[in-house]
Amino acid sequence: MNKVTESILKSDSIAITYHQSPDGDALGSALGLMLGLRKIGKEAYIISRDKVPGIYRFLPNTEEIKENASCPKKNTHCVIVLDCGNVERISGKIDKSKINPVINIDHHISNSKYGDINYVDTMASATGEIVYNLLKSLDVVMDTDIAKCLYTAIITDTGSFKYSSTTASTHLIAGELIKTGIDFPLIHRTIFENKPLRKLKLYGKLLEKVELFLNDKLAIIAMDKEHSTLLEDNSEIISLQMQIDTIEVGAFLKEVDDGIKISLRSKDKVDVRAIAEIFGGGGHEKASGILLRDMHDIEKAKKALINVLEKELI
Amino acid sequence: MNKVTESILKSDSIAITYHQSPDGDALGSALGLMLGLRKIGKEAYIISRDKVPGIYRFLPNTEEIKENASCPKKNTHCVIVLDCGNVERISGKIDKSKINPVINIDHHISNSKYGDINYVDTMASATGEIVYNLLKSLDVVMDTDIAKCLYTAIITDTGSFKYSSTTASTHLIAGELIKTGIDFPLIHRTIFENKPLRKLKLYGKLLEKVELFLNDKLAIIAMDKEHSTLLEDNSEIISLQMQIDTIEVGAFLKEVDDGIKISLRSKDKVDVRAIAEIFGGGGHEKASGILLRDMHDIEKAKKALINVLEKELI
Repeated sequence: MNKVTESILKSDSIAITYHQSPDGDALGSALGLMLGLRKIGKEAYIISRDKVPGIYRFLPNTEEIKENASCPKKNTHCVIVLDCGNVERISGKIDKSKINPVINIDHHISNSKYGDINYVDTMASATGEIVYNLLKSLDVVMDTDIAKCLYTAIITDTGSFKYSSTTASTHLIAGELIKTGIDFPLIHRTIFENKPLRKLKLYGKLLEKVELFLNDKLAIIAMDKEHSTLLEDNSEIISLQMQIDTIEVGAFLKEVDDGIKISLRSKDKVDVRAIAEIFGGGGHEKASGILLRDMHDIEKAKKALINVLEKELI
Repeated sequence: MNKVTESILKSDSIAITYHQSPDGDALGSALGLMLGLRKIGKEAYIISRDKVPGIYRFLPNTEEIKENASCPKKNTHCVIVLDCGNVERISGKIDKSKINPVINIDHHISNSKYGDINYVDTMASATGEIVYNLLKSLDVVMDTDIAKCLYTAIITDTGSFKYSSTTASTHLIAGELIKTGIDFPLIHRTIFENKPLRKLKLYGKLLEKVELFLNDKLAIIAMDKEHSTLLEDNSEIISLQMQIDTIEVGAFLKEVDDGIKISLRSKDKVDVRAIAEIFGGGGHEKASGILLRDMHDIEKAKKALINVLEKELI
């Protein structure tokens, strides 16, 4: 951390960026850091080729983020990249021959250490946690705007303190942040409980279509093309499906132009990466994905999947 | 707190109880306290006329709770009542002329101070928080069993740290509890994400039936008698309905034998207690209830409700 604070203290003008398609941790960390650095007299700003998703526009100063301002300004002394595992995914456009140092701050175990200075704390539940500690070591006094940003970062990356990445430090920091008086129940509602009715109705329709197989240990939702176009993001409906008490594995099948996409989730016992690999897919033990290219028969895809999972679940 | 610890230290045999229809806070607090007191050599046990709901049976030592063991044993020196606002709602059967002291430990502002000793901390998010502090002041060392109980108490009463009752202390205590190494993600899944498929399908059906009124500020789900019998608990479906982005008020109408039951929830602007009172109901500003006795026409009930809410929402 010392190298990071030293570099920051030496720099008057600091650009901040994050990974492409920024989420709550990327945006909250970046905005919180920007506001904190301004409090100690730095010119700090965000560079990004991504728009701020509507759901995060409640965060302070998001109107400053413009997708056509993705390059560092002249006379910028350093660039801080937050929450981004590899150089290819950086949202800002950085010419490393022109700016030194690039400071890489992240919590992902897969981080490729692409910075001139790398601070990767894999014990942190969110990059927001690291930014909190960084601001503390720079003697920045928390205020409600910074707290709003960092609290958002932490709850999006920990699923509101329920993922195993949550630690005692996470809670300690969350406690300090809510002490500033932020309306954290409103932040929860804004991020997690804010859906258009058509989405909720589509979830309703899909939940009615859930089918159980293999002694009720496998749940499948299969969605045809007509509905696929309505649903941009599968993660919520998959989470709902995973709440079924009897299941070990949940599969979500979706017709797309070039075939059938399958998302797999596992509760405990099955390594769904291994299952995905059988079909040429990949991912993690608990969450993986497959594209059955040129396959358009959803019943056939279901049968193939059930066949492979039978060995694991029966 | 001193009077409480003094009394406990003087007692060899301690009965613990809670409110009727115990929830996660009542059960978690009671079991955590029981296990903690046993660690300092006390005979501690739970008295209850209620069964432990299935969802909480994962907690340690629940098999000791039997609904036919609701009276204190002979030679019990004191009874501790947890999380219970008034004497009528106590689950254990206590004859106050026979046992002294009755120690009343609670966090509800409405607590009627019915104990010989009353410790009511309305700043605590959950009675589990108070029990944590009590065990600390009795020098009980936390272990995973106690931590599991108290963590459950806290997350059920704070909605996983999202309700406004959550404080920095809540987070501090949660951090200390997870330090013991409990599998807290599993506790979250067990309590919040564990539903029979038929329930999820019923939610699906009900979500499809949501109707919006008054410039999309009022959402209504109306459930007929046939489905009413399938749904014991409305709270989850109401929470799902309240996620609709445009609404201020959510109403859930349900046909029951003696009329139509209405549950009202408000996001921010409308005092739904006042609305309920117009129909002879009651409750809180953000959550209230009505029974339209002898009314069996659900469309008529909807219209009456829309009429009254029109003044508030348009």
